[in-house]
Amino acid sequence: MRLAELSRHSGVSTATIKYYLREGLLPPGRQINATTAEYDEEHLRRLRLVRAMIQVGRIPVATVREVLGHVDDDSLGRTIRLGAALWALPQVPEPDTEDAHVRAARQEADALLRTLGWTNARLLTTISPAYRSLVVSVAALRRLGYDWDAELLMSYAELMHRAAVLDLDFVETRESEAERIETAVLGAVLVEPMLQALHRLAQEEESARRYGFE
Amino acid sequence: MRLAELSRHSGVSTATIKYYLREGLLPPGRQINATTAEYDEEHLRRLRLVRAMIQVGRIPVATVREVLGHVDDDSLGRTIRLGAALWALPQVPEPDTEDAHVRAARQEADALLRTLGWTNARLLTTISPAYRSLVVSVAALRRLGYDWDAELLMSYAELMHRAAVLDLDFVETRESEAERIETAVLGAVLVEPMLQALHRLAQEEESARRYGFE
Repeated sequence: MRLAELSRHSGVSTATIKYYLREGLLPPGRQINATTAEYDEEHLRRLRLVRAMIQVGRIPVATVREVLGHVDDDSLGRTIRLGAALWALPQVPEPDTEDAHVRAARQEADALLRTLGWTNARLLTTISPAYRSLVVSVAALRRLGYDWDAELLMSYAELMHRAAVLDLDFVETRESEAERIETAVLGAVLVEPMLQALHRLAQEEESARRYGFE
Repeated sequence: MRLAELSRHSGVSTATIKYYLREGLLPPGRQINATTAEYDEEHLRRLRLVRAMIQVGRIPVATVREVLGHVDDDSLGRTIRLGAALWALPQVPEPDTEDAHVRAARQEADALLRTLGWTNARLLTTISPAYRSLVVSVAALRRLGYDWDAELLMSYAELMHRAAVLDLDFVETRESEAERIETAVLGAVLVEPMLQALHRLAQEEESARRYGFE
């Protein structure tokens, strides 16, 4: 398809598509003469991914370029390729390891992974931004005197593991490896806000079931 | 306790506590003479809540004041009081109802609530920001050609309902109604980032289980 069709199919303006091409976020089309290039389904898919990250995820262009670099690096295994792509997304800053709450949270997170038998996640604790986010959020809860127990944390973790199984089952329905990696990145940008919305809706439903509207 | 003790117990500087008092985010202490006021456990709890919203949730002072107004309004029933407090938190903007994807997403969300039997949530669709967020995020997925089915959405919703049951069970362990409402607001600010971290960790674990690290 030509640029105008690519624009029509994607709902992205030709000016924006040209900008993405210049920034290297979209691979060049196949040049069929000096002024015309031809684009295919792969361009359309990539354009949707870029738009999701920039317009929905509000992710900076340089970060999008970095994520796409990992998405396209087929020299890596799938877990690492996925990890590298997701890890390049904006993350929480490194926690202060001198802080007593951070140290306690780290012990709590490590105990959780051990109890759950998440042996793979345990191998990644020194490098995974997800692990770092968990430590930061548990430390924030502790600092505020939110005195819950390890069992509650485990119940939440088990629910999130079921969500991860659903995510990966869906990713596996995609035909090509490139589509699978792209779907995983899209999921991180788009599915997380949806889960949060469902969570709050479920709280409203459950609250009204327990206490009514009076 | 005196101001200095309140500061020591909460880890919040006396200058910041004075600022919160001036802004009306913290009720005044009991004046025991012209220059000294006495604070109690309730001040400490409120201070933690304010700090969580401002420092962890990055919520503007005016919004915090609005949320606290609902938290403290004991003329309302618990569901409404909780809803009013959570709804005052920053939310997604109103979706464009002229947009075909938004209309389709609304139908999908309505069908979901019907199928799930969430009759209470259905009563709130015209006013609930959580419902609006769901419509916005489903519309974004649709617009990007993320062609999943209604069954997957329902599976996610069921998981989030279990998370909501855990949330409210924990809220009910708090002794006073004021603490229960405060815990619910803290949960929205602090537990959601933790769920997201657990979700990503679970994805790493599940991905490595399925595909290894090669």
